[in-house]
Amino acid sequence: MREIRKDPISDRWVAISTERGRRPSDFGITSVSSELGDPKLCPFCEGSEDKTPPEILAWRKQGTQTNRPGWDIRVVPNKFPAFVIEGDASRSGRGIYDMIKGVGAHEVIIESPKHDASIPDMDDEQVCKILWSYKHRIVDLEKDIRFRYVLVFKNHGKAAGSSLPHPHSQLIATPITPRYVKLELANSRAYFQEKERCIFCDIIQYELEVGERIVYENEHFVVMAPFASRFPFELWLLPRRHEFGFQVFPDSNRIMLARCLKNILKRIKVALNDPPYNYVLHTSPSSVPRPGKPDYWGTMQYDFHWHIEIIPRLIKTAGFEWGSGLYINPTAPEEAAKFLREVEI
Amino acid sequence: MREIRKDPISDRWVAISTERGRRPSDFGITSVSSELGDPKLCPFCEGSEDKTPPEILAWRKQGTQTNRPGWDIRVVPNKFPAFVIEGDASRSGRGIYDMIKGVGAHEVIIESPKHDASIPDMDDEQVCKILWSYKHRIVDLEKDIRFRYVLVFKNHGKAAGSSLPHPHSQLIATPITPRYVKLELANSRAYFQEKERCIFCDIIQYELEVGERIVYENEHFVVMAPFASRFPFELWLLPRRHEFGFQVFPDSNRIMLARCLKNILKRIKVALNDPPYNYVLHTSPSSVPRPGKPDYWGTMQYDFHWHIEIIPRLIKTAGFEWGSGLYINPTAPEEAAKFLREVEI
Repeated sequence: MREIRKDPISDRWVAISTERGRRPSDFGITSVSSELGDPKLCPFCEGSEDKTPPEILAWRKQGTQTNRPGWDIRVVPNKFPAFVIEGDASRSGRGIYDMIKGVGAHEVIIESPKHDASIPDMDDEQVCKILWSYKHRIVDLEKDIRFRYVLVFKNHGKAAGSSLPHPHSQLIATPITPRYVKLELANSRAYFQEKERCIFCDIIQYELEVGERIVYENEHFVVMAPFASRFPFELWLLPRRHEFGFQVFPDSNRIMLARCLKNILKRIKVALNDPPYNYVLHTSPSSVPRPGKPDYWGTMQYDFHWHIEIIPRLIKTAGFEWGSGLYINPTAPEEAAKFLREVEI
Repeated sequence: MREIRKDPISDRWVAISTERGRRPSDFGITSVSSELGDPKLCPFCEGSEDKTPPEILAWRKQGTQTNRPGWDIRVVPNKFPAFVIEGDASRSGRGIYDMIKGVGAHEVIIESPKHDASIPDMDDEQVCKILWSYKHRIVDLEKDIRFRYVLVFKNHGKAAGSSLPHPHSQLIATPITPRYVKLELANSRAYFQEKERCIFCDIIQYELEVGERIVYENEHFVVMAPFASRFPFELWLLPRRHEFGFQVFPDSNRIMLARCLKNILKRIKVALNDPPYNYVLHTSPSSVPRPGKPDYWGTMQYDFHWHIEIIPRLIKTAGFEWGSGLYINPTAPEEAAKFLREVEI
């Protein structure tokens, strides 16, 4: 198959070029579980709470003390933050250029007290607590009007950019709306204004009818290999019904989301030999208005549809992708979906 | 330093966050020269001409035969092409999606008959021949009206996406104008229409005045670390005077470009321990009109300014970059420029 496909959300073109290849065994993946290292040196393990900055949020057993053992989830500032929380987000020029002070928040969500835990093998309640912490931190940071967006993401394995093997996610709050986010928001708004329907809802309905790219579904969630997958075995996890933001997704559905996330991460782990991966939460920005900020996309962005994008890191991006923004994917999403649907977990 | 800087060409924001790091020795680079492998198995070495598809173009010694030894440069089709040359670039819908047949050209420029050659150590004339072949192939492929753009790039080292260690570049001709190219063209056109000046010319003038991001200059070319560098030690090589396309760049300047390219690749090799890198030629599309193609950016794109972007692959992109399009760069371009300016070569 050689097709150039367009992703309707981002307007991104992707070349699906399957003559080059690749079944899971062709990627030569080194399992991330070989990177665990020595837990004694790990700053995220239970008992090493003094090796991180003081906690911002934790799910703790009754009677335990802040920054002491006895927690299930701990959120702490990143010790080496890309952005810092102090200061204002003032904009300025420098010669012919524009810049903003690098103010923001950069936090680590420690997903378990156990060094060798991993989401697919946790119990449902533990994954629920991770999802609870995501929501809690987003809602809290959105109250800070210096920030325009809060991005939650996970890097699993060194090749996916992770520097510590203990299971963790991260979030970054930025004083600008990142451009991929803007693009997705703008395109879904344009579609909504034209059709009075959500573009994601239309895609979900179409994909459920066609079926060939669906990997998993339950009552509230569906997981698919997107039509214009940039990467082999890329997956999107979406709520079946229209929900613009993760911030407003009902707590009563959390257990279904936890099961869905566990299920597909397990499929990836088994089918692809525990590969490095990234996942990223795509959600509408804050519902708290920022008066007088013309490039702010937050208020009333009900035409968006939150989802989680999962990218196994099986191939290297190269000069062509950096120069063009056009991705070459050697595995058809239909093949990837079939493989992940049929793998025994 | 913690600043979020905007690149005026692409409108891309980049976080320069230097608290995290990084002098060259901090990146833990494995030299690409350790990846040379066994030349006997190499399909690009002199004497193995039958291991590649038949050559499209070559710089040959007088009296030698096509597809036989005796060449300095050989251009051949990629044996595992991402796009194929046969067929039409017809557009179609599939359900709610858009697609185009994956027609295109995918060629390999073998830069030397020698397995262990590398641009910084070649003689000037050999590098001139590489540049000659780039121009020759772009001009030839632009005559094919199915194609909208020809992108020339080089992947050096496995971590930069290269699958064969023998020195080579590649080119891909695509039936769409890639979106990064469109964005750069659109922004430079908008600037030109407003100011009646080229945005690149303005940047070059400003950077030469300020000086702190300049790495190298000669009579015709200048190399700088761009103000909003996405990556540590990213460099742009530009002609000093306005030239919209590499296709029209005068042959008489080729030797100066060869010396410039050798010089900066040598600086990178010495300073960063022969790191993996990509470079990409950014040029205006074809000057051959494509009638009736509304999204075609080629004709009269005199407001662009060709250049080569060089990206050492020192850090891994992670979930945050994939989700946001906002890059975090741990090395200030001013530091990178100073280091590369002062390294002894």
